[in-house]
Amino acid sequence: MKAYLISIGDELLIGQTINTNVAYIGKLVSENNISIVKSSVIGDNLNIILEELDYAITKGDLIIITGGLGPTRDDITRNAILKYFNTELVVNPDVLEDIKSMLNRRGREIKKTHEDQAMVPKIAEVIRNENGTAPGYWIEWNNKIFVVTPGVPYEMKAMMDNFVIPKLVEKMGKPSEFIKKLTLQTTGIPESLLSDRLGNLDELLQGAEIAFLPSEYGVRLRITVKSDDEEKAKNLLLEIEQKIRSKVGRYIFGRDDETLELVIGRLLKERDLRIATAESCTGGGLSDRITNISGSSSYFERGVVSYSNAAKVELLKVDEDLIKEKGAVSQEVAMQMAEGIKSVSGADIGISLTGIMGPYGASTNKPVGTVYIGYCDDKVCTAKKFQFGEDRILNKRRSTQAAMEILRRNILGIPLDD
Amino acid sequence: MKAYLISIGDELLIGQTINTNVAYIGKLVSENNISIVKSSVIGDNLNIILEELDYAITKGDLIIITGGLGPTRDDITRNAILKYFNTELVVNPDVLEDIKSMLNRRGREIKKTHEDQAMVPKIAEVIRNENGTAPGYWIEWNNKIFVVTPGVPYEMKAMMDNFVIPKLVEKMGKPSEFIKKLTLQTTGIPESLLSDRLGNLDELLQGAEIAFLPSEYGVRLRITVKSDDEEKAKNLLLEIEQKIRSKVGRYIFGRDDETLELVIGRLLKERDLRIATAESCTGGGLSDRITNISGSSSYFERGVVSYSNAAKVELLKVDEDLIKEKGAVSQEVAMQMAEGIKSVSGADIGISLTGIMGPYGASTNKPVGTVYIGYCDDKVCTAKKFQFGEDRILNKRRSTQAAMEILRRNILGIPLDD
Repeated sequence: MKAYLISIGDELLIGQTINTNVAYIGKLVSENNISIVKSSVIGDNLNIILEELDYAITKGDLIIITGGLGPTRDDITRNAILKYFNTELVVNPDVLEDIKSMLNRRGREIKKTHEDQAMVPKIAEVIRNENGTAPGYWIEWNNKIFVVTPGVPYEMKAMMDNFVIPKLVEKMGKPSEFIKKLTLQTTGIPESLLSDRLGNLDELLQGAEIAFLPSEYGVRLRITVKSDDEEKAKNLLLEIEQKIRSKVGRYIFGRDDETLELVIGRLLKERDLRIATAESCTGGGLSDRITNISGSSSYFERGVVSYSNAAKVELLKVDEDLIKEKGAVSQEVAMQMAEGIKSVSGADIGISLTGIMGPYGASTNKPVGTVYIGYCDDKVCTAKKFQFGEDRILNKRRSTQAAMEILRRNILGIPLDD
Repeated sequence: MKAYLISIGDELLIGQTINTNVAYIGKLVSENNISIVKSSVIGDNLNIILEELDYAITKGDLIIITGGLGPTRDDITRNAILKYFNTELVVNPDVLEDIKSMLNRRGREIKKTHEDQAMVPKIAEVIRNENGTAPGYWIEWNNKIFVVTPGVPYEMKAMMDNFVIPKLVEKMGKPSEFIKKLTLQTTGIPESLLSDRLGNLDELLQGAEIAFLPSEYGVRLRITVKSDDEEKAKNLLLEIEQKIRSKVGRYIFGRDDETLELVIGRLLKERDLRIATAESCTGGGLSDRITNISGSSSYFERGVVSYSNAAKVELLKVDEDLIKEKGAVSQEVAMQMAEGIKSVSGADIGISLTGIMGPYGASTNKPVGTVYIGYCDDKVCTAKKFQFGEDRILNKRRSTQAAMEILRRNILGIPLDD
């Protein structure tokens, strides 16, 4: 089965909204052995939508459409569906009930705009919306499947997870070709150096495919194996993984979608260790990422965002004279921050960051992007210098990633140097 | 001029990477009076790329292609360009020089893979890359313009900002139709209620268009006016803005791309106020957002991420017995946290958050999504309860947004209730 994704909304075209929906749907669909031939974004325009549907059915068997189903006047996807399938609107009593009970829970009254949301195209099977008022549609027509969902991410996600994917899996049965993918997540090594270290790729891959996916968090290596034998595909993938690990293993922090915060959470839990953070330049970005992981309260004790020097002195016991002498952005202060947060919190590990994120604040020997990351546990206390780039937000992200990688390497006893 | 955007990369199709590039390009291009007809994502496949180029030129005058220009084997866009334009590779000495000096700055040696990056299609004018090794291309052909850039966001961005947009603007001259857009950013009011409060839209808009763009941060209202008279378009836009503000003004925190963190930063700076944050459930997400703003050190004093109860007691002077009696997630504790961070830091305003982000930690009368946000300044000290949803990450984001909105309304003296 081949999928063609269509996202509808001017806000996506003119860059007011980042299209996270296609990434979510693309991942779900491809994990379920459906290949994606193309994904398109078009504006809120009836004729363009109709034209795109005409084109999509020449490329895909499964057309997934998101966006433009809301209650307001810029939402014209439902009209496009009516016209394309030459069908009419009917009231769906289940949807009306859903809307009433949702409004009831939120203490609001039903209005004309809500009632209108219960009108759905006659040709469609309704996909109920747990998180909003607009239902989705499942339409089977001329051997093609059309799925239509609202564009609000959490509404779309629940529909895909609970209705669309289970129904697709049931429809498809067992696949004839097996596509196995594995992603190895690296950080701290540039793409070209990684490629060099892997050496001869043909030898390494034995017919498999590799993709290098760089981002501010590192380079992901995606390996794809295709075979009519599932076992064979799995084994080749394992073999390639072993070879890659033998060459660049120290840079690999996780597999597939594992984030570094997930990985360090697991490591800390397994070892029953508790950490605390002292952030200056990253402003809480590190603790924010750490606490994105459910259950992080068992290993994250506290964080301090010591933006002012007073906070560094009062909360982290950093020596005021040291700040004057070496500057707040220095190896010595980073080390004292890490030491301070460890001792004040009673955690097993203290991590600290101090740096210049830009665009202002640089000095001659400390350009924008200079960051010191401190690490202290019961045995070692160190601080390492990093030199990132010009962009404030990217610098914040790279700094939090580097801090977590330092944590990972220290916990696992992997040397910090290349 | 009509633009057609093509993003190349399997990682975008299968959802390993969120496509932020099209949003960036879409925004830039549309701000410069170029309309975008469509945006597509296709995989790393030579034939599909060629087919897509054939299709794109039937829809657009300007084809912008990103991705697949890197140094590794999955990067096949250059090959596609060679084939499509029936051209050959030539060494570009400027690019070779750029690559050498970049590697030199980073203390690395030039290798075969780097030298290969200096080979560019003969038909192309080179777009130099300030942040990486792969150059971009500008190709004019049959009255169409093709722009090709790497997919790494910061490499693409510098090329668009410094080369592509200035060159396009110069080429286009003065527009004949003026399209003026304005976005009003609201938070704390659902889409359907907002629509109801705006009343009769035809009356309000006088021929202009409106779009409602909901997200976890609120609903944006985008108004679009088209006219052959620039002054007229501007005036109508202003008039509509005034009418909207008279109806739902209290929910509007900003215009166009202004984030709430930018707005509160400006308000604090203007009033010479300093704030400090005490976060439990959001784990530093609030201070992270506040410090995303350059210059925030002048109004953000410090933050405490009091994940453990010990941290609440030690760093924020919250009464230990109160935590036992009312629970860490309670109105009383939220208020003490805000009071505590204000007094400990000496800031003018203290903001606090405590809540249950999920998926675990709920109790009978405190379901997942329960959050208390505390606010204290020299005159008032309050805490307000919010009930968000089931998703941990969304709950964190909504909580930080709500906290900043409370800050904004308090500073401006706008009542918190609807």
